[in-house]
Amino acid sequence: MDKVQLPKLKVCLSPALLHLYDTTGAVVVIIDVFRATSTIAAALHNGAKCVIPVAGVQECIDLGNQITNSITAGERDGKVAEGLEHGNSPSEYPPSFIEGKTLVLTTTNGTRLLHMVQDADTIITGSFLNLSAVCDFLVAQGKNVLLGCAAWKDRFNLEDTLFAGAVVNRIKSNFEVNCDSARAANYLYEHSSETSFIEFLKDSSHYKRLSAYGLHADMEYCATPDLHPVVPILKGKELVVYKK
Amino acid sequence: MDKVQLPKLKVCLSPALLHLYDTTGAVVVIIDVFRATSTIAAALHNGAKCVIPVAGVQECIDLGNQITNSITAGERDGKVAEGLEHGNSPSEYPPSFIEGKTLVLTTTNGTRLLHMVQDADTIITGSFLNLSAVCDFLVAQGKNVLLGCAAWKDRFNLEDTLFAGAVVNRIKSNFEVNCDSARAANYLYEHSSETSFIEFLKDSSHYKRLSAYGLHADMEYCATPDLHPVVPILKGKELVVYKK
Repeated sequence: MDKVQLPKLKVCLSPALLHLYDTTGAVVVIIDVFRATSTIAAALHNGAKCVIPVAGVQECIDLGNQITNSITAGERDGKVAEGLEHGNSPSEYPPSFIEGKTLVLTTTNGTRLLHMVQDADTIITGSFLNLSAVCDFLVAQGKNVLLGCAAWKDRFNLEDTLFAGAVVNRIKSNFEVNCDSARAANYLYEHSSETSFIEFLKDSSHYKRLSAYGLHADMEYCATPDLHPVVPILKGKELVVYKK
Repeated sequence: MDKVQLPKLKVCLSPALLHLYDTTGAVVVIIDVFRATSTIAAALHNGAKCVIPVAGVQECIDLGNQITNSITAGERDGKVAEGLEHGNSPSEYPPSFIEGKTLVLTTTNGTRLLHMVQDADTIITGSFLNLSAVCDFLVAQGKNVLLGCAAWKDRFNLEDTLFAGAVVNRIKSNFEVNCDSARAANYLYEHSSETSFIEFLKDSSHYKRLSAYGLHADMEYCATPDLHPVVPILKGKELVVYKK
């Protein structure tokens, strides 16, 4: 009997390395743990109609003006960007506030990576908040997977890589993993298992940066697995909840 | 009393990320464990007059013709490249053969990164074979340091990152380390300490690739610390042994 050929699982550590990967026909997971893809999971799980990720503040304002029942959100340097209404924190979007609304969200790193991906079969977003849901989705699809870390201004970061490692660790038996980035991410995850994700991430550049803005609680929230078990999937320009 | 400002220690995981780092006035360590910088350490420790790294096979042949008492070397796909005399294995350069000679060496990844670095104060090469010598040199210089992984065709690799982590682990108390790549490399190193370097590296893409060419013994040699305790330093176009 022929050996069953498993789909491939790879990790891209920075948008600056994306060109090295063939995403044709693959499922690409956009990962921006602090905090875009965490906020997306929270908003959609809490009942947002959809999330529209956009690159710039002006585009965010313009779309917000066009779409009824929409909210514009985004931060620059840890504060709500001028002209926008809300920030980039998952805690800002409880059901009582976000239900039925369209969230137009501008972020620097996550949105940029999402718009860079071409020819993928499917684009979803991942974060610790929807870790298990993402893993279940990837296994069920059975296609090649690229876990894309949004990084920080193209710089490798620990939090996105740690999340990628958590995914690799959970689903690696269902895939062919011949990718050193995936192996390294998995080792990071195994290393972190001695402690909690947030304890591990306290020694990261992004934690230190956001701590200076007083965002400790936000990051702790973002590092908590499975609080918002949905799979945000890109349909046209909108991220919506995946339904089987 | 003012807090003493320590020099910065950073890790660049791929030549495709080099533009993110300021190398002005810094010491840059070129790392290509399998096998360029291992071969360079071996050849220089065994008495080579110098090593001249070049990008292409033709350039290697031309330089070999110009320089008396020189040897041309380089591989493509695990075999000595056509027109060259020797391969890219540290074991090919014992003292009885290499002493007093100029080794003109063409490699794909390591040489490319070396030629990409601009404005550095100093460029040296590192590998497990000269791990302690490199660490001692970096601490003694007291300048900013960038550990530059040659990677494989711009792809992150485990072996160069593991070496970078070994350096970070040993010298981090002498530097300011606010770089997630350096932290991740250090975690990899800590993870590997349960076993030998080569055991850890057996699950890497490059090990699997070179194994197919029967190069197991070569890689085991390259993963052995401090067999060739010299610091190869770039002077003009030549790598020579650093002398205090």
